[in-house]
Amino acid sequence: MSVQDVVIGLAGLGTVGSGLVTLLRDNATEIERRTGKRIIVKYVAVRDVTIKRDIPEHTKLIDNPLLMVEDPEIQVIVELMGGLGIAHTLIKEALLHGKSVVTANKALLAEKGEELFALAEEKNLSLAYEASVAGGIPIVQTLKDSLAGNKIKTVTGILNGTSNYILSQMSVNGTNFDEALKSAQELGFAEADPTLDIDGFDAAHKLKLLIRLAWGVHYPYEKLSVQGIRNMNAMDINFAHSLGYTIKLLGQTAQVNGEIEAGVSPYLVPEKAMLARVDGAFNAIHINGNAVGSLFLHGIGAGSLPTASAVLGDIMSLVKDIYDSTGYVMEKLPLAPMVNPEIMESPWYLRLMVHDTVGVLRDIAGLFAKQGISISQVIQKKKQEDGVPLVFMTYETSMKAMKQALHEMENSNILISKPVAYRVLEV
Amino acid sequence: MSVQDVVIGLAGLGTVGSGLVTLLRDNATEIERRTGKRIIVKYVAVRDVTIKRDIPEHTKLIDNPLLMVEDPEIQVIVELMGGLGIAHTLIKEALLHGKSVVTANKALLAEKGEELFALAEEKNLSLAYEASVAGGIPIVQTLKDSLAGNKIKTVTGILNGTSNYILSQMSVNGTNFDEALKSAQELGFAEADPTLDIDGFDAAHKLKLLIRLAWGVHYPYEKLSVQGIRNMNAMDINFAHSLGYTIKLLGQTAQVNGEIEAGVSPYLVPEKAMLARVDGAFNAIHINGNAVGSLFLHGIGAGSLPTASAVLGDIMSLVKDIYDSTGYVMEKLPLAPMVNPEIMESPWYLRLMVHDTVGVLRDIAGLFAKQGISISQVIQKKKQEDGVPLVFMTYETSMKAMKQALHEMENSNILISKPVAYRVLEV
Repeated sequence: MSVQDVVIGLAGLGTVGSGLVTLLRDNATEIERRTGKRIIVKYVAVRDVTIKRDIPEHTKLIDNPLLMVEDPEIQVIVELMGGLGIAHTLIKEALLHGKSVVTANKALLAEKGEELFALAEEKNLSLAYEASVAGGIPIVQTLKDSLAGNKIKTVTGILNGTSNYILSQMSVNGTNFDEALKSAQELGFAEADPTLDIDGFDAAHKLKLLIRLAWGVHYPYEKLSVQGIRNMNAMDINFAHSLGYTIKLLGQTAQVNGEIEAGVSPYLVPEKAMLARVDGAFNAIHINGNAVGSLFLHGIGAGSLPTASAVLGDIMSLVKDIYDSTGYVMEKLPLAPMVNPEIMESPWYLRLMVHDTVGVLRDIAGLFAKQGISISQVIQKKKQEDGVPLVFMTYETSMKAMKQALHEMENSNILISKPVAYRVLEV
Repeated sequence: MSVQDVVIGLAGLGTVGSGLVTLLRDNATEIERRTGKRIIVKYVAVRDVTIKRDIPEHTKLIDNPLLMVEDPEIQVIVELMGGLGIAHTLIKEALLHGKSVVTANKALLAEKGEELFALAEEKNLSLAYEASVAGGIPIVQTLKDSLAGNKIKTVTGILNGTSNYILSQMSVNGTNFDEALKSAQELGFAEADPTLDIDGFDAAHKLKLLIRLAWGVHYPYEKLSVQGIRNMNAMDINFAHSLGYTIKLLGQTAQVNGEIEAGVSPYLVPEKAMLARVDGAFNAIHINGNAVGSLFLHGIGAGSLPTASAVLGDIMSLVKDIYDSTGYVMEKLPLAPMVNPEIMESPWYLRLMVHDTVGVLRDIAGLFAKQGISISQVIQKKKQEDGVPLVFMTYETSMKAMKQALHEMENSNILISKPVAYRVLEV
């Protein structure tokens, strides 16, 4: 066995970048045994080159990542800067200069990916991104290769660890949303600006990539229906629990009669389902395929080493010359046949705050009936300071019918405060 | 996109073989979109060619699978006959004739694999076997590629669906072992001769392959410590439950100070662990790696379509020219540095049936103390027809110390019947 060097350039030395440098050092023997090659990091591009960094002696610190693109010695460029700006230029230039790319940049791939994937295909290069979805969980490879012989029916995932941590804290410790968010920020899970996480956009970025992998179609990111968990009320977590459900933020997509349903939103998940048991900052993905049946993957969805594990797996696959990005033999994927989220049907959980007066339940039931909505369960709770909580579980109902019923309730003076409505996951 | 044909030969048209034929027909569009190729089954080899089979019109039924090896048109041979006889010859001859092989034959690969893998490596061909371990769960690819950058610490799996179904039945429905086995046989999970399943040999075959993938070493199958679930007593399932555990048949392996611990045996698994929640005929594998942390995969471990899903994934990867069998760049793997199972330490669960006489507990405690075994919990149950059940949970103890203590008890007339001892899984 002769050992060759593979020379790579790394852009970004944050959480994941540092993790990668650590792994390349600590697991060097294993890497060499598995690939027959030594991986040498020639450059690390960072914003501030004056800060001392824990990198190998032979590695050059640079502040312009585009310098790496011009160096003929560099075989693979690893983009771990994030963002839609320089990262975008870097990946494009790398591909144009004949270099394969490994990235963990879900936002970029979700919003600008079609252009970059097509460029990689055109140049017969790889654009690898296992680390972009669910950290260390091998979901990209699973959908791309292992399940390649399946017609995928559904993909359902807990794709954002911060949101899941917040929901777990609220569920297990009874903390309210603001406290749980603060705790997530103190532990370093949540960013100072947690918008991407708690408003569902991060999960939506990943969902867009999952749809691409599952069906080989382009579902434009901006068309996805996205609802996060901001201002989630502990009361609903408790009601859900008493009904046998846990509230989770899910990215959900299904192929129904050749069309793609997709969206991110809070769901009530039956407690017996594996997805209900995903605690803390874990991620998990449930896939249903026409051959494999039910497949569930659970692991650490973020953080330094777990994400770097996926980056390194991609680098090693590239070094073995075996990567193609989506697993479909075409430069440009067709547009997905998208189902309007308004007409997607599911059971719903609904919690209303009403006045304690005669006829309220009759009026509400009348508004449901008017929209053809069937009720499977009603729970009326004791009067609280801010009204009487009324909880409904419905049978299959479209968002459109639900919205219309809620709209009429809001206009009828029945409700004291804004209604809360979440989809219920069917398993 | 021009469509090429890939011509394959299939040996065996049992459960999995028929599943593969079904998938090749039903999912043909997806397969072509993902590979750019049409997969044509030229031959199906079966024992009895006079029986009418549901195969494509262009497919030839033959009774000698070795005929396919000589046909220059055949690119890949799929071995789904099972057994160690003709299957062995077929795979060897296929490789010698320059054809890659896909197989689901765990017994063959566990017992004769080193020779076959070395031959494939020497000939620069593929010997793919995703379907051999845990059916549709992509564990081979995960260990081989996705986690390639990890030092794997532990791999723990529920690897035999029949055993797990029997244990689930006993646990949930309170049926006894014989009834549960009979029900498994009636449902078609268990063979008429269930030895391979319930005595742990099938799980051991898979464990041998997992060790190979996790650490790139050869752990001879016949050196594995194997204990099955034959004659499992419902009483122990109940005791375990009252202590917060579920009994599962686990294949377990760990790298400890550079040496490999490995074995198949019943374990008490804490109910909070994901592995405890694997019900019925499902399989699941928990991996711990130094980068990825905890990763858990759960799916259908056997059956027609789930296993065929893995076979087809392998065929499609081959068609894309990207398969190597273990993910290590060497012809022959080194022998594993094996830990003697006798000195592997773990907590233990112990159930004794004793006489209702003064001083019994003192005598037993004395025998434990003599072997340096510390007790963490003792439960004495009400007297039953066949004696008084005494249940112990110990701290970390080697099998050697445990065996010695049990041996002394058996010689001391304290016990009414054979003691029951299972390891307790630490999570």
